[in-house]
Amino acid sequence: MNPFFNNHGPFKLSEFNNSKISHLVQSDELARNDSLIYDVKNLNEATSKDITFFHSIKYKGIAINTNAFACITKTEFFKFLPKDCIKIPTKIVLLLTALITSKLYPESIIDNNCYDLSDINSKFENILFGKNTLVGVNVNIGENTKIGHNTIIENNVTIGKDCYIGSNVILRNTIIEENVHILDGVVIGKKGFGFIPNDDKNFRYPHIGYVHIKKNSEIGCGSTIDRGSLSVTIIGENTFIDNQVHIAHNVKIGNNCIIAGQVGIAGSSILGNNVKIGGQAGISGHLKIGDNVEIGGGSGVIKNIPNNSKVMGYPAKNFRKFLREQK
Amino acid sequence: MNPFFNNHGPFKLSEFNNSKISHLVQSDELARNDSLIYDVKNLNEATSKDITFFHSIKYKGIAINTNAFACITKTEFFKFLPKDCIKIPTKIVLLLTALITSKLYPESIIDNNCYDLSDINSKFENILFGKNTLVGVNVNIGENTKIGHNTIIENNVTIGKDCYIGSNVILRNTIIEENVHILDGVVIGKKGFGFIPNDDKNFRYPHIGYVHIKKNSEIGCGSTIDRGSLSVTIIGENTFIDNQVHIAHNVKIGNNCIIAGQVGIAGSSILGNNVKIGGQAGISGHLKIGDNVEIGGGSGVIKNIPNNSKVMGYPAKNFRKFLREQK
Amino acid sequence: MNPFFNNHGPFKLSEFNNSKISHLVQSDELARNDSLIYDVKNLNEATSKDITFFHSIKYKGIAINTNAFACITKTEFFKFLPKDCIKIPTKIVLLLTALITSKLYPESIIDNNCYDLSDINSKFENILFGKNTLVGVNVNIGENTKIGHNTIIENNVTIGKDCYIGSNVILRNTIIEENVHILDGVVIGKKGFGFIPNDDKNFRYPHIGYVHIKKNSEIGCGSTIDRGSLSVTIIGENTFIDNQVHIAHNVKIGNNCIIAGQVGIAGSSILGNNVKIGGQAGISGHLKIGDNVEIGGGSGVIKNIPNNSKVMGYPAKNFRKFLREQK
Repeated sequence: MNPFFNNHGPFKLSEFNNSKISHLVQSDELARNDSLIYDVKNLNEATSKDITFFHSIKYKGIAINTNAFACITKTEFFKFLPKDCIKIPTKIVLLLTALITSKLYPESIIDNNCYDLSDINSKFENILFGKNTLVGVNVNIGENTKIGHNTIIENNVTIGKDCYIGSNVILRNTIIEENVHILDGVVIGKKGFGFIPNDDKNFRYPHIGYVHIKKNSEIGCGSTIDRGSLSVTIIGENTFIDNQVHIAHNVKIGNNCIIAGQVGIAGSSILGNNVKIGGQAGISGHLKIGDNVEIGGGSGVIKNIPNNSKVMGYPAKNFRKFLREQK
Repeated sequence: MNPFFNNHGPFKLSEFNNSKISHLVQSDELARNDSLIYDVKNLNEATSKDITFFHSIKYKGIAINTNAFACITKTEFFKFLPKDCIKIPTKIVLLLTALITSKLYPESIIDNNCYDLSDINSKFENILFGKNTLVGVNVNIGENTKIGHNTIIENNVTIGKDCYIGSNVILRNTIIEENVHILDGVVIGKKGFGFIPNDDKNFRYPHIGYVHIKKNSEIGCGSTIDRGSLSVTIIGENTFIDNQVHIAHNVKIGNNCIIAGQVGIAGSSILGNNVKIGGQAGISGHLKIGDNVEIGGGSGVIKNIPNNSKVMGYPAKNFRKFLREQK
Repeated sequence: MNPFFNNHGPFKLSEFNNSKISHLVQSDELARNDSLIYDVKNLNEATSKDITFFHSIKYKGIAINTNAFACITKTEFFKFLPKDCIKIPTKIVLLLTALITSKLYPESIIDNNCYDLSDINSKFENILFGKNTLVGVNVNIGENTKIGHNTIIENNVTIGKDCYIGSNVILRNTIIEENVHILDGVVIGKKGFGFIPNDDKNFRYPHIGYVHIKKNSEIGCGSTIDRGSLSVTIIGENTFIDNQVHIAHNVKIGNNCIIAGQVGIAGSSILGNNVKIGGQAGISGHLKIGDNVEIGGGSGVIKNIPNNSKVMGYPAKNFRKFLREQK
């Protein structure tokens, strides 16, 4: 599944119970259970071989349906989980989740530069490359794709056919389908802005996700698209993104969307298909924006938007209401 | 006129009537007319040798005075055009215009990287260059100009004397006058964010314009200035632009303007002289901002602003009114 | 103190009185005084060997306590200065200050590219470098620090141990402590957006400050941090900054702050400790933001914010008030 991070598991639940972790757990559930855990996943994506986490009441509707074998959570949330899901109680859900993720994926905590890059070699004889371009190991590039100057393509990245990649681009932890245009200066696949605040030294949360850019899309100059912490950041088919846009970790954007310059979309928000967003608009984290939604330029969206709505303002509201109130 | 795109015309009007185009035209005007068309231009810039287009009612005041030989438009707009202007009726004005532009300028549809760049050679013996800088063919650079490291200057770009160009800069389709400072990481001259939305695969509109940066101006780090579709994107004399500003295609900015960080100006807006814009303000597309206008930081401008006004807010209104309403 | 700019002083006050300067001064104080001036500093930082300037009434509370030997100011501000401080009267305070600063620091007016960079050499045998990285003279890098590809480190920059510097980064006039992460495409230490507007040709103000990034902090992709004009731009310990953030000249940010994507902080504002700022928020210049302040995403802050406040809106106001008014 994930070509970018090496899963060191499975581990028995009890194997996670090391000195960094044990004092965070408010029961002996972790210590005494020898069941194998294969991966760490979100509530809705976890299978019966995985551990998950549940840290905010807003996810109680998803929690009750999780298939996870075990769940890291607060004792007061136990009642929202399936009976047969093993509950791992803690007061600091995200920290415990991060430590367990770090054990499964020890290389994921920081973005080390990829140092085994090389100049272009004979493997890519049918690809047009600019000067000073660096390519890692296990990179795949489809035919008729063109790559600009000074561009860095790190290990394991896949780029489809008929793509155009500009100059000064950095690609890591990224899968790009066919006929995608990535313009100059774009940075895709760095870890998201996720960490657990701590007074002396914040704890950097592992980011084991990646970025998936679907076919026929375009990413404008200087835009940044961060990879997900546990899940994938997705740009849908035929979605066009203008310059200086920031797409945070775990965001999922549908097909045929149009996103104008300097828009920002915070972590884990999900956009439907045919969404149009005007310049400089911002969308808060963990929101759901429906299909065919239009968001006016400069808007600040702080709650979910249903299908077929047109909104504007800060905070964003019905478009007609916004204009009426200005008179 | 345009040193960046090769005009393959003139063509007879009838020569445009190929299989991609003919089904879009609602008359036989295109097919049966053998008059020569030399170029495609905006309504107000077209001469009697050019074809133009007229797609929105807001341009009816300009349409009546066009000198164009022919005009692509909707049948209901015929009455707003001069009698002797040949009308080419279609339901999809922009698509037909794009296809005709593509025939005149077949190389303009996408920004292919420029691959005939080279390291610095003896031609530029009086210019100070950084390391790893790449320069295309037919580039002219004035004396006493300094260029940074890793900077890319594509074919046909002209840079005046006494300029300072930073590092990691990308210049294409750009004419820069004397004593201009372009700071690190700026990208100038890429195609604008213009395309015709289409469900499976958006149609990329040709961008045959360029960028003209007048003397004594400054462009801050990480800013992006896109080239126009049919006309020129202009930065006026002695205009200073801060970091992370986005200037979209066809925008024209006057002289002595001051534009603070993270401002965005959408496509085709026109700013007068002595305009001051505070940080993070946004200006919608196709607007006219007068001389001596001051726009407060964070404002969202969605309508024309007359000369000598001071505005703030979202949407931007009279500055005093904005402050009064906050009490 | 300042490793980046060479102070050509001290000069006698009378030595500043050249042809560019003398017509700006409304007394003979400058011409007839042979006392030595060692440096130019802000009102609150100047010692009895320095000259300072006082251009806005908002600084009258600081002016009365300045230790400066001399002060450039308007005659109507004389009464706010200590009796024994030599007053240099002028109508154009900032221009005269800039000209005097230029005499002390003649190399500071523009950011000339640093041309004496070189590829990595044996001095840094314990540092991991990417490809095409350029390093200036007198650069110090601590052990176990990793530097990415295409990164430019100009003369006199210091980087602590255990740091991570990404690719396409530009560092100049910057001191970085230990365990700091600077992500891809960041530009730190360029001159601020400060100049004296002038109809034909703006006068570029000297920027002799630098940037100080304290330990354990992180700067996200594509962010820009400008150096101060006279003082230092500071990022506090364990402060994390997301992508595409702009920090202007002279800004001072405290410890343990969290600043989300696309935030902009205008010149000379001061933030306390534990400040949290949501995405796309903007803070005007010369403001004071207290400790433990939370600023909602998209807010526009245009006045000082006291400790322990939570604000949102444009202009930013009490968070509860903002939400109540939306109903």
